[in-house]
Amino acid sequence: MTTLPDEHLRYPIGRFAKPNEYNAELLAQSIETIKTLPARLRAEVIKLTDAQLNTPYREGGWTLKQVVHHLADSHMNALMRIKLALTEDHPTIKPYNEAGWAMQTDYRLPVESSLKMLEGIHQHMVALFDSLDEAQWNRSFLHPERGVVYTIALSAAMYAWHSNHHLAHITQTMKLWSE
Amino acid sequence: MTTLPDEHLRYPIGRFAKPNEYNAELLAQSIETIKTLPARLRAEVIKLTDAQLNTPYREGGWTLKQVVHHLADSHMNALMRIKLALTEDHPTIKPYNEAGWAMQTDYRLPVESSLKMLEGIHQHMVALFDSLDEAQWNRSFLHPERGVVYTIALSAAMYAWHSNHHLAHITQTMKLWSE
Amino acid sequence: MTTLPDEHLRYPIGRFAKPNEYNAELLAQSIETIKTLPARLRAEVIKLTDAQLNTPYREGGWTLKQVVHHLADSHMNALMRIKLALTEDHPTIKPYNEAGWAMQTDYRLPVESSLKMLEGIHQHMVALFDSLDEAQWNRSFLHPERGVVYTIALSAAMYAWHSNHHLAHITQTMKLWSE
Amino acid sequence: MTTLPDEHLRYPIGRFAKPNEYNAELLAQSIETIKTLPARLRAEVIKLTDAQLNTPYREGGWTLKQVVHHLADSHMNALMRIKLALTEDHPTIKPYNEAGWAMQTDYRLPVESSLKMLEGIHQHMVALFDSLDEAQWNRSFLHPERGVVYTIALSAAMYAWHSNHHLAHITQTMKLWSE
Repeated sequence: MTTLPDEHLRYPIGRFAKPNEYNAELLAQSIETIKTLPARLRAEVIKLTDAQLNTPYREGGWTLKQVVHHLADSHMNALMRIKLALTEDHPTIKPYNEAGWAMQTDYRLPVESSLKMLEGIHQHMVALFDSLDEAQWNRSFLHPERGVVYTIALSAAMYAWHSNHHLAHITQTMKLWSE
Repeated sequence: MTTLPDEHLRYPIGRFAKPNEYNAELLAQSIETIKTLPARLRAEVIKLTDAQLNTPYREGGWTLKQVVHHLADSHMNALMRIKLALTEDHPTIKPYNEAGWAMQTDYRLPVESSLKMLEGIHQHMVALFDSLDEAQWNRSFLHPERGVVYTIALSAAMYAWHSNHHLAHITQTMKLWSE
Repeated sequence: MTTLPDEHLRYPIGRFAKPNEYNAELLAQSIETIKTLPARLRAEVIKLTDAQLNTPYREGGWTLKQVVHHLADSHMNALMRIKLALTEDHPTIKPYNEAGWAMQTDYRLPVESSLKMLEGIHQHMVALFDSLDEAQWNRSFLHPERGVVYTIALSAAMYAWHSNHHLAHITQTMKLWSE
Repeated sequence: MTTLPDEHLRYPIGRFAKPNEYNAELLAQSIETIKTLPARLRAEVIKLTDAQLNTPYREGGWTLKQVVHHLADSHMNALMRIKLALTEDHPTIKPYNEAGWAMQTDYRLPVESSLKMLEGIHQHMVALFDSLDEAQWNRSFLHPERGVVYTIALSAAMYAWHSNHHLAHITQTMKLWSE
């Protein structure tokens, strides 16, 4: 894996590292991260002016507003994939073109609509996670484009990382502004 | 199409009738219905006791709480399908097992999480609809299990019907109680 | 009481008529009206464009946006007065200058903040109302400028009227536009 | 001022210290604290079980749920006092019995209603603060029971402290549990 010139801007908390094993502590941490993300995100974006929301977090990257809307879309897909894995036998999920989605007109909406989506979606995710037994944590889906099998446990770890990853794009950008 | 013995309970506003043509007025009506559904739904469910939320709307049917959570899940899928149709060339979408989803543990959550999801999701849908030109209204996706091609215009009409269809399950059930 | 030339615009559902007596049915109706107002209001204002929100509901009257913010402020005062009446012996409340409040800068905010206030405030009001016994319904406060004694029962009836009164300003204005 | 035996539990961030002077930096800090409190509070309380919400933060003190509802009630009063100070000439405000209010039945509601109230109320407060000139920051009200004159600037500093004070009751209690 090549380190990019703007690696620290792209990956402020580092790239996702697939856990070697899933123990109760790791899953509990992932759940807590996912549980609190919508409010932690709201606490950061409420401080932003419109000008700041429309500023990219790195040269050529998404604006902070696009980052917020992307989180809603991405975690909507995540919730769906987890539900598919719980109700079908190793389903193949439908990937989506996240760059294309970020160009649609709804990404110009104020962030409130996506903050509400995230509040609701994360409560559903956490309600599911809190009820899973070991066999269910190991249920899985196939991402056909990446050719990767995701268990629900791996998804929990990954979306916890993804939550903090994009939140860090916002906090990092704000820190650079205030310097 | 056979009329079922409990047809009026299952389909309180009638079955969905595919429009013959899509004119500006029909689309505007569909958009307004979708725009106001989350608040109209909230106005009804806030009147319900827990016992009422846990009562099925027909013998063998979902409870009113399951109906609310189903609306969030169904319209989350709808938003995704519309975005797929806008960003890919006639994609095949991934169906989901709505009966199986309704049995998952998150359907026992208080309805607030799904009301928030719906508030956010419908704002995104409406923002997209409000910006579409005729060519975009005709973009489509394939539902592989039903073998049906849905244009975005057809989706708008159908999810407007679907909004009022499930809302009527709730208002109809409440009317029967109060008699 | 003189009927004003624009009486029907000022009082689309008529002026408040003090009930002669408070029975269980009247109180139940008032509670249901108050319970559903925030969602019914949201369902109407979500249909409004910015231009419509900034239009007065009558010549010389508040804009629709000011009406929404006024509802939040007025019912915040109402909640406070009800709590004062429940925790003090016939307190004298502090009136406020509603015309002056409507000129403050926060009345230029998008309506979402006031819709959220109303959702929360009305849930608290209803939780209180649902628990009152007859003696508590008769607890009272004094409005020193009007020289009027309000029991909690009278407040419930009045704020139910006040809810529908201002909602009707909005629906009436929209009807006039669409003609 | 006597230090109490459980001073550190009662005042986890210390008692409020009246600022000697109000400069732009102090006011900006107060505004940012008030702006982010509702989301920071939501991020903490969403982690709590019902049992934890019903646990007092100190022996003989309020439960964490009462703390959340108290914040909504207290800051509702704060918003009102600030608006009174802006629209009347040095008004005398109406104090309230916070211990009595905390015993009312609405304090048994789930916290969501108060979180929504706080989200809305703090947005209004911040919209007002962001627009004040120096003369307005110095407008004041009298708290008749404490015999204290509060300028709006002092209120901003005090409610910023009050926000973090009660939030610390929650985070401190959670830390003690996890030890």
